[in-house]
Amino acid sequence: MAGNSFGELFRLSTAGVSHGPGYVCIVDGCPPGLPLGIEDLLPDLARRRPGQSHLTTQRQESDIPEILSGIYQGRTDGTPLGLLFKNSDQRSKDYGSIEAKYRPGHADFTFDAKFGFRDPRGGGRSSARETICRVAAGAIAKKLLQTQGVSVLGWVCQIGEILWQTSSPEKITLDQVEKTPVRCPDPETAIKMMALIDEVRLDCDSIGGAAQFIATGVPAGWGEPVFDKLKADLAKAFLSLPAVTGFEYGSGFSAAFMRGSQHNDLFEPHPGRNPAIGTKSNRHGGMLGGISSGEDILCRTSVKPTSSLARLQTTVDQKGNPTEILTKGRHDPCLLPRYIPMGEAMMALVLADHFLRHRAQCGQTLQNL
Amino acid sequence: MAGNSFGELFRLSTAGVSHGPGYVCIVDGCPPGLPLGIEDLLPDLARRRPGQSHLTTQRQESDIPEILSGIYQGRTDGTPLGLLFKNSDQRSKDYGSIEAKYRPGHADFTFDAKFGFRDPRGGGRSSARETICRVAAGAIAKKLLQTQGVSVLGWVCQIGEILWQTSSPEKITLDQVEKTPVRCPDPETAIKMMALIDEVRLDCDSIGGAAQFIATGVPAGWGEPVFDKLKADLAKAFLSLPAVTGFEYGSGFSAAFMRGSQHNDLFEPHPGRNPAIGTKSNRHGGMLGGISSGEDILCRTSVKPTSSLARLQTTVDQKGNPTEILTKGRHDPCLLPRYIPMGEAMMALVLADHFLRHRAQCGQTLQNL
Amino acid sequence: MAGNSFGELFRLSTAGVSHGPGYVCIVDGCPPGLPLGIEDLLPDLARRRPGQSHLTTQRQESDIPEILSGIYQGRTDGTPLGLLFKNSDQRSKDYGSIEAKYRPGHADFTFDAKFGFRDPRGGGRSSARETICRVAAGAIAKKLLQTQGVSVLGWVCQIGEILWQTSSPEKITLDQVEKTPVRCPDPETAIKMMALIDEVRLDCDSIGGAAQFIATGVPAGWGEPVFDKLKADLAKAFLSLPAVTGFEYGSGFSAAFMRGSQHNDLFEPHPGRNPAIGTKSNRHGGMLGGISSGEDILCRTSVKPTSSLARLQTTVDQKGNPTEILTKGRHDPCLLPRYIPMGEAMMALVLADHFLRHRAQCGQTLQNL
Amino acid sequence: MAGNSFGELFRLSTAGVSHGPGYVCIVDGCPPGLPLGIEDLLPDLARRRPGQSHLTTQRQESDIPEILSGIYQGRTDGTPLGLLFKNSDQRSKDYGSIEAKYRPGHADFTFDAKFGFRDPRGGGRSSARETICRVAAGAIAKKLLQTQGVSVLGWVCQIGEILWQTSSPEKITLDQVEKTPVRCPDPETAIKMMALIDEVRLDCDSIGGAAQFIATGVPAGWGEPVFDKLKADLAKAFLSLPAVTGFEYGSGFSAAFMRGSQHNDLFEPHPGRNPAIGTKSNRHGGMLGGISSGEDILCRTSVKPTSSLARLQTTVDQKGNPTEILTKGRHDPCLLPRYIPMGEAMMALVLADHFLRHRAQCGQTLQNL
Repeated sequence: MAGNSFGELFRLSTAGVSHGPGYVCIVDGCPPGLPLGIEDLLPDLARRRPGQSHLTTQRQESDIPEILSGIYQGRTDGTPLGLLFKNSDQRSKDYGSIEAKYRPGHADFTFDAKFGFRDPRGGGRSSARETICRVAAGAIAKKLLQTQGVSVLGWVCQIGEILWQTSSPEKITLDQVEKTPVRCPDPETAIKMMALIDEVRLDCDSIGGAAQFIATGVPAGWGEPVFDKLKADLAKAFLSLPAVTGFEYGSGFSAAFMRGSQHNDLFEPHPGRNPAIGTKSNRHGGMLGGISSGEDILCRTSVKPTSSLARLQTTVDQKGNPTEILTKGRHDPCLLPRYIPMGEAMMALVLADHFLRHRAQCGQTLQNL
Repeated sequence: MAGNSFGELFRLSTAGVSHGPGYVCIVDGCPPGLPLGIEDLLPDLARRRPGQSHLTTQRQESDIPEILSGIYQGRTDGTPLGLLFKNSDQRSKDYGSIEAKYRPGHADFTFDAKFGFRDPRGGGRSSARETICRVAAGAIAKKLLQTQGVSVLGWVCQIGEILWQTSSPEKITLDQVEKTPVRCPDPETAIKMMALIDEVRLDCDSIGGAAQFIATGVPAGWGEPVFDKLKADLAKAFLSLPAVTGFEYGSGFSAAFMRGSQHNDLFEPHPGRNPAIGTKSNRHGGMLGGISSGEDILCRTSVKPTSSLARLQTTVDQKGNPTEILTKGRHDPCLLPRYIPMGEAMMALVLADHFLRHRAQCGQTLQNL
Repeated sequence: MAGNSFGELFRLSTAGVSHGPGYVCIVDGCPPGLPLGIEDLLPDLARRRPGQSHLTTQRQESDIPEILSGIYQGRTDGTPLGLLFKNSDQRSKDYGSIEAKYRPGHADFTFDAKFGFRDPRGGGRSSARETICRVAAGAIAKKLLQTQGVSVLGWVCQIGEILWQTSSPEKITLDQVEKTPVRCPDPETAIKMMALIDEVRLDCDSIGGAAQFIATGVPAGWGEPVFDKLKADLAKAFLSLPAVTGFEYGSGFSAAFMRGSQHNDLFEPHPGRNPAIGTKSNRHGGMLGGISSGEDILCRTSVKPTSSLARLQTTVDQKGNPTEILTKGRHDPCLLPRYIPMGEAMMALVLADHFLRHRAQCGQTLQNL
Repeated sequence: MAGNSFGELFRLSTAGVSHGPGYVCIVDGCPPGLPLGIEDLLPDLARRRPGQSHLTTQRQESDIPEILSGIYQGRTDGTPLGLLFKNSDQRSKDYGSIEAKYRPGHADFTFDAKFGFRDPRGGGRSSARETICRVAAGAIAKKLLQTQGVSVLGWVCQIGEILWQTSSPEKITLDQVEKTPVRCPDPETAIKMMALIDEVRLDCDSIGGAAQFIATGVPAGWGEPVFDKLKADLAKAFLSLPAVTGFEYGSGFSAAFMRGSQHNDLFEPHPGRNPAIGTKSNRHGGMLGGISSGEDILCRTSVKPTSSLARLQTTVDQKGNPTEILTKGRHDPCLLPRYIPMGEAMMALVLADHFLRHRAQCGQTLQNL
């Protein structure tokens, strides 16, 4: 496969480029009977949209999809959802100069190396606008997960040198995240982060960061024991997003410093949960042996600084001759704020898929024998 | 799918548990005509084997597979390779006590939550012996990759507080890695690491660490631009291994601290490469837009400390009642040394798969038109 | 998976219903560099279109797709092709009465049984308009196959009691097929078939038939030996079309009457072919052991009479109560003429997929060793 | 994929050749908790075994597998089942002469054309012994289907010119089928068939035939509406078996002769079924729109005469030079009797897969909202 589909049972396929007529995506495998309408997609699409604040690109895009199929009388009908996003703001003149030169940090060169040539307009298929399909599909996955009591949330926990951590991630609310455009739930840290992004932007530079994600309400038992471990599918999901450079869950890279006696999360009774068992701590990030434990699922990912810079950089042209490039256009000085809904979407897609996979193999039918 | 297969075109499927009769694996999709024999599998299987040194478990296992099919007259014949690993040392008495109690950090509880019951002998399907199939398949993948000039290598770069880093990962050799049982190529650091593991073991404890992996010779153009980015498939591959808690490539999590002007790798002419283009630095870890760039592919992963401890730990039994557990048996105090061949195998499987995927879509046939 | 994708490497995914806003399809995995434009899709779409003659429904549909992506400067660029077919002629009043009653021979009842409810407008997802996506994707597959010297053709060989057979299927041309609206290449038989269809139509009835398909130029070696035999994937492809009730290749069901000494096709030298080997006869329909032999690939399929009849038929309503139904609307009295481009499309999709699969595993790279 | 796996959720993967050490297969995705033991596999394996009567080859094979994994304390445990079939009777001398000559009707030539060379011993990967894995996996699928009230049965309905048909296929029992070695449930016809096979065998020839298959108890709602129609997956399943040349379901090819008014099956109340709806007749073979209707699923398939003949036949050698070949060894003069358990197995695999697929998307969880 050429890699334009994601998921086994809850499955997203996408096509489109940022400066063509538009994007289409197909969401296959959604259970029938789920109440769903365009209004369920719009909030996350708005969170992803460029031009939300001075922290992000001022490019205006048409982000309201047309739902072509899959919903009848307000409910999913079991057939695939077809979504169409038309492109509107196609200033291809901004990108004309990059056709023959390779932008550092971008996929221009590797596309040429792979396919022999490429659509240079707006980054072509590697444009971040492709994530619009993911966010829409993720919103559908979130709606499905709600029926199982599962919710997904993400926030910015680092911008450059400014870090913020919480010991109670399960208490963070969407409102807290959305209170500032930088999407860090701590107001004081958020102010510092925004100031830093502004500073970097004025310096014609960009900056990286990191984000935290949590899924609450996932019952014990989702995930597969060997290759399709829940942690493995989450890692793939996040790393499939542009600019993501690292993934860790639970204790993550800090586990490398620890002793087993420090790291092990001890089991204890957990009344009210089914089964009534929990752990005293959650360094395992809600997953043991690739299967959810009933504890919150916790991941952290890093995102590199935007590659497009309004500065001269040395590079080569398509023939390999040295040259210089200045990437004009409107670019986010920091990808993190808009990355949050993208990451949530990918997490939701993985969980929705594993919900259905678990139901397929371990559904109630057989147990009743 | 229940997750016991890995890869799209170069595809590994496995079955087996550590205390049953044995493991089988099927490697499907290997090109015909590849010279291959059992002698190609043995070195990596030996590197994975328990009991190599006092750093690892003294459990003896039968690690020599029987190749049932797929090779004719010393070459792969295009049909699937079937491999059989018989189990020999099945001291199931060591594990009898854990049937009704949940070992902290293990998958006992989550298996029960998922499947309703489980095979408790030796960890059942979640036993690390399952990786024997991966290492064997990885050795086949390495042999295939050699025909393309690609090689894969890993080493230990951290044990607890002891870290070691190199600015020239491409210069590390297999001999350097194998010189000490801890598989850190720097002799001085290796001695310290081994002393630390010994100390931890005598303390009835375990310790975590991290490992670095490199693939050299990967031509520009492997990988898929959207969901099956090379970095995404690598992340899944590593996270599908037991105990791995984090993945980063290139600059990884340190990218979160950086400015774009620091992070971007500038293109420059690279005579002798095809195309003759390279980058001055390699913070992108050999992948741009999910596609290989021709630079070395660089990943780092973290591994948690062994969960099995020869100490009393509190836990619960299957009914959720508090109890205590002492995990007897022979366990690695540190997983890192034996993790190296496993990680290399997963990296090789991903690259072999993407080699074939790239050839399928972008092979020579069409370009000749 | 919910079954809205077809193919492993050359992969079609579709969504849409006949009385919603439109259909979308995504064609993933097409090699880059293939010259392609909308003009390559229109001829087969025109052959599939309703209203071509009095033999078929007079319903007018918009059959010209918008190509959203995947082509740059007149050539495929290796990224997925997104196609949009807008619906125009949506006389949903014709279908209003069927919401609560189950039409005999249709999927109304089974959709309700599966999904709990359904979109009744125009047959919803089971509308034959869904094949528009297949025909468009098939036209792309045909273009790809042309680069390998492969072409695909089908024709009507039976309408009711009127059969026509040729001993030289490789000599039939597209022009001969298209000479009459019934798509039987023999003019005299075609006249009789058209008369029979007219008669049936005037009788408010419908009629079944059969069609023959041939692929010429397929080199020896395409197909997989075990589960994904070329004959198996062709069988699935044809049977996935609405109303197809049977598939046979080569000698087909007549093989049941034969002795081995009659049936075996004897090998003989075939100068000019590579390898220079052929068979004296072709009862094996161009496939041996699931792999193409270099001879023409020959299939025959049967199609049931249209289920929609302008007659009163007894049936039940959604509650299972007996009732009567008269299916109004404009329906083909015989599906065969429009089935030809659909069958060709499915055959082309299978062959394009196996071309890429063969190239992936058995491409030139390794053989050069 | 190289085509050695079958099924999406209930998934069989196989490896092995007839004259190597043995076969392995992996059955992945089976629900946990299914009572299962070797005794569930043996009856169908015995039905498939060569040497059952003078009608079939006298070759003796070891057909009792070792179950390596997936069962704990008499029940499936949700992990993959690994099965090992050792080969015993490997008279490779019988096959020595065919290495350089192409047997008519066999896959020798196409394997060479695909892979460049092949294992000639016993037909290598294209040996019919490969079906041993399918029959074993099919027996597991049958056991799973039993829990849903579904059973599968097949019988011989044609040998050469001798045909036998029943209007009440649902009344045929396994006992009736097994009463004679030819597996035709009608005793008088069976005697004639056996006489014909004997006659053909004495004439050093072989003969073709056809078989009927039925699945009873399949609830309405299994199958997918578009590409993975139940009829399509069944067609692929049967055609993936060696020597099968045609597939039809319900009215099949006879539908080509019919009017819609004759063909449509009218709905009527069917008390006791859920939903309480059935059809007066079953020309639709239990499937409408690719989804099961609750009526019996009915298929018929044709099988060519055995290609191996104890007669001189002209052919070519590997270099394309004319030569003659006499296929020694012990071969079935008619494949049909042993084909019955193979066909049943494939039908059961398809139904088990679609049971899980249906449960994944349309399970109870969501409907309860």
